[in-house]
Amino acid sequence: MTANSVSAVLLLSCPDQRGLVATVADFIYRNNGNILHAEQHTDAGSSVFFQRVEWELDGFRIPRDGLREAFQPIAQRFGMTWALHFSDEAPRVAVFVSKEAHCMYDLLARLRMGEFSATVPLIVSNHPDLEPIAQRFGVEYACYPVTPQNKTAREQKVLAKLREARIDLVVLARYMQVLSEDFLRAYPDRIINIHHSFLPAFAGPRPYQQAHERGVKLIGATAHYVTAELDRGPIIEQDVARISHRDSVADLVRKGRDLEKVVLARALDLHLRHRVIVYGNKAVVFS
Amino acid sequence: MTANSVSAVLLLSCPDQRGLVATVADFIYRNNGNILHAEQHTDAGSSVFFQRVEWELDGFRIPRDGLREAFQPIAQRFGMTWALHFSDEAPRVAVFVSKEAHCMYDLLARLRMGEFSATVPLIVSNHPDLEPIAQRFGVEYACYPVTPQNKTAREQKVLAKLREARIDLVVLARYMQVLSEDFLRAYPDRIINIHHSFLPAFAGPRPYQQAHERGVKLIGATAHYVTAELDRGPIIEQDVARISHRDSVADLVRKGRDLEKVVLARALDLHLRHRVIVYGNKAVVFS
Amino acid sequence: MTANSVSAVLLLSCPDQRGLVATVADFIYRNNGNILHAEQHTDAGSSVFFQRVEWELDGFRIPRDGLREAFQPIAQRFGMTWALHFSDEAPRVAVFVSKEAHCMYDLLARLRMGEFSATVPLIVSNHPDLEPIAQRFGVEYACYPVTPQNKTAREQKVLAKLREARIDLVVLARYMQVLSEDFLRAYPDRIINIHHSFLPAFAGPRPYQQAHERGVKLIGATAHYVTAELDRGPIIEQDVARISHRDSVADLVRKGRDLEKVVLARALDLHLRHRVIVYGNKAVVFS
Amino acid sequence: MTANSVSAVLLLSCPDQRGLVATVADFIYRNNGNILHAEQHTDAGSSVFFQRVEWELDGFRIPRDGLREAFQPIAQRFGMTWALHFSDEAPRVAVFVSKEAHCMYDLLARLRMGEFSATVPLIVSNHPDLEPIAQRFGVEYACYPVTPQNKTAREQKVLAKLREARIDLVVLARYMQVLSEDFLRAYPDRIINIHHSFLPAFAGPRPYQQAHERGVKLIGATAHYVTAELDRGPIIEQDVARISHRDSVADLVRKGRDLEKVVLARALDLHLRHRVIVYGNKAVVFS
Repeated sequence: MTANSVSAVLLLSCPDQRGLVATVADFIYRNNGNILHAEQHTDAGSSVFFQRVEWELDGFRIPRDGLREAFQPIAQRFGMTWALHFSDEAPRVAVFVSKEAHCMYDLLARLRMGEFSATVPLIVSNHPDLEPIAQRFGVEYACYPVTPQNKTAREQKVLAKLREARIDLVVLARYMQVLSEDFLRAYPDRIINIHHSFLPAFAGPRPYQQAHERGVKLIGATAHYVTAELDRGPIIEQDVARISHRDSVADLVRKGRDLEKVVLARALDLHLRHRVIVYGNKAVVFS
Repeated sequence: MTANSVSAVLLLSCPDQRGLVATVADFIYRNNGNILHAEQHTDAGSSVFFQRVEWELDGFRIPRDGLREAFQPIAQRFGMTWALHFSDEAPRVAVFVSKEAHCMYDLLARLRMGEFSATVPLIVSNHPDLEPIAQRFGVEYACYPVTPQNKTAREQKVLAKLREARIDLVVLARYMQVLSEDFLRAYPDRIINIHHSFLPAFAGPRPYQQAHERGVKLIGATAHYVTAELDRGPIIEQDVARISHRDSVADLVRKGRDLEKVVLARALDLHLRHRVIVYGNKAVVFS
Repeated sequence: MTANSVSAVLLLSCPDQRGLVATVADFIYRNNGNILHAEQHTDAGSSVFFQRVEWELDGFRIPRDGLREAFQPIAQRFGMTWALHFSDEAPRVAVFVSKEAHCMYDLLARLRMGEFSATVPLIVSNHPDLEPIAQRFGVEYACYPVTPQNKTAREQKVLAKLREARIDLVVLARYMQVLSEDFLRAYPDRIINIHHSFLPAFAGPRPYQQAHERGVKLIGATAHYVTAELDRGPIIEQDVARISHRDSVADLVRKGRDLEKVVLARALDLHLRHRVIVYGNKAVVFS
Repeated sequence: MTANSVSAVLLLSCPDQRGLVATVADFIYRNNGNILHAEQHTDAGSSVFFQRVEWELDGFRIPRDGLREAFQPIAQRFGMTWALHFSDEAPRVAVFVSKEAHCMYDLLARLRMGEFSATVPLIVSNHPDLEPIAQRFGVEYACYPVTPQNKTAREQKVLAKLREARIDLVVLARYMQVLSEDFLRAYPDRIINIHHSFLPAFAGPRPYQQAHERGVKLIGATAHYVTAELDRGPIIEQDVARISHRDSVADLVRKGRDLEKVVLARALDLHLRHRVIVYGNKAVVFS
């Protein structure tokens, strides 16, 4: 693959059956495609087959805008749930923040360095604190303060803003608000949250305080898709760091920041490179 | 320190106050002791001071059997909870097992190689399965089958056996029985369990099954002192290993065995080298 | 796959070209095979394609003993280097040791617990020290002392013994002797060594001493195939553990043992499950 | 300790001898100091004693500016090499960069968030590329292009600039130039470098290329003090990340960036909190 060539990525899942790998590979081969990566997985318990195939579009006989139609018969035959992506797409991402700056700083720096194929045209917050950082990076900062009364109306305003900015993906970068089911329905499997614990341990508020009280020897961070059940969505990535009795809650917060930044960035990267298939409450991650 | 010299280890905790470090160091210094290791910690929340001091007995002016009496006035003055150990003691350990052999194999091999300063004169089980391994290593295997009716009577027999074998420490090496509070009272802070999850995640039965269902990206193991609340005792050591969607429950069980072996062995080693002070529901571990 | 069904594993490498995935998948599909796992990789630098495919033999139309012949035309067409294995094979492994017992204990315990599909009919050593352990596990222990004069003659005796015992694979479990090129030729890519450092750091003798002198903050272990260049063969698996200035060389040796055991066992497991393809001086590991 | 109180940190090393811990603790105690942290270490090979003691200045009887003089007699008596620091000092740090932005971004974001007690008044580079980032963060960017002819004259200019900016500490944040011994003498044990490998593996240029060619299964990063021997100075911190055959050199570069950022930040934090004592070619790190 030359550096600038575009590739297609097919993500699919369906009941396991003979001929799946052969049929998909044959579809690409007989249209003169060259497979760059192909990974598959069969969940033994549910007998569900998952596949990610990536091939070069350069020289492929089916034009890009005819690809979905051309693949549709195969998808139908096997009962596939599927999605097709192209490597030159750059989704529009909204980053949601509250008062903690580290994940926002980290994501904006990575974007500036070209680590992600995405753009961030919008930052949404419930507090004005981080606006100067957004300005420094030249990103619009939309602040919608939360009051006990305005939760529903405020969410509608945020959703309208996301639509106006044509947002494809939402990243909760230490955004301390729970989203309503209405909101979640607007971005199914397209809201990524970073929780500052090794889920399912220490779900809910103040996980570092909880970890300190329990006396654990490792702290963690978990990036997951947001679903209606708090901190229960499909896990994309997790990592941990060693701590000791010498670490105060403030030390855990400090050490945890590095975990949160890195785990969230890895999860976003996996999503943007189309390496994640959500199935039920779990995520198949072809890393 | 020459390889064969004996050292004393003092473990203490008390309300934090000025002069603690100076007083203990002075006690050792003016009796001609040479400090090998000294570690202290003050818990900021509770203002409790913890210390572990180890010094050579060779040349120390107070004889070994007079040491407790000589230190008592200092302990009283500061209101210390304390314990004194000597590096040449070899506690008598009973290993409790069910049907899983990996932790038992690992502990017995380490003992044979001289990794621990301890002896294991007794293995206790509720099943006969692992008796051949005990025989191979020349260790007595006492099997007490469990029935729905005999729980209390059986525990009394086990306790009698432990007393008869003069057991100092109990290690639950994948022993699948819950111990009664009566039993725990006989060995306070001297029963170490290995739980096959990253506690507090997946407490209770079948943690690998739970981990698989939740779709976590890391599995863990936790060594802790056993208390009346199941899987809630002071944590001595934890570790994790990376897994993926490709791992079945059987794979988690297989990968988890290595975690369990190593985490349990590390915890036992820390306990035997007198590096752990239990305080409330937490363990201060001077590693 | 039912627990007892047998599967075939095909490992292959060849110049990258269109149609590889499709042709292999089609071969299996049109003979009524069900693919359990398929992984492929193309090395971008060398444009070499690697693949591991595993499928159920149950219901497959080509009988097991005709499989090699049936696949040969495809292999020839694409210029493949390839090997075919069956999941019910149990290679005969010789474990080579010197005086350190931990890897030997660990491997024998895992074998007894059925972790590996292999048998160990023979342990070879240059010292008599570990013979009692071999006896305890009921394995033949062949001791060939090394003298400055007998290196070549001794190796010939060892090779004869391996042939007599029909050994398929050699595992150097802290065997402190360098093998001659003659010896290596008898077991190409079938001698696995555990080196007690994070290679290429601290190759050669006394790696823990070297690590202590350099003041590194992590120690490591490396499992690799043995080649003519000392400690330079294809790496199968590596891992590290955190250390500190408090650790003496003896502490590194102690902590390193757990790394060595686990890394060697993982490498052996990967080899036995046919997950490794050697290419040049590197190992493609489908883990 | 109240959040705003100032503490003193004493770092010392000397030949091991009886009474060291007692004498230092007594000095603090009889002047009404309260020890917050005290850690000591004796290197068994060299019999050198190392200590870090931190105590509150609030209520301490010796005024801050008389402390060095007051401690001098003890230092002399035991032959100590020592340094005294105060927790409210904020060293002036110059960050040296070339073209890679990730460590610079990360350090500047951490400084803005108040993670370090330090200021960065100056960024030095040999390329103009990163000047816009410096401007965004409001930090002076001094660019001194390198030519084959100007190495010595250029270094003199940089040194003059550092003196003018009253720089205490230099951080090489992926600065691709070797510093002369003259330069190093101006900042002994006060130049921290991040090397993008697990030293001593892959010292010198292009470590990710080297790692890829060798086929290692983990990549690393090492933060160390710079000495005259390239990549051979005292190691402060190291860490590793798992890779596989699927990772190209570009993937290693990308994954390595996160290691480099975190390892450099941890090392700088340890240095700024006075937790490092350099001894010979090693660093004792009280973490």
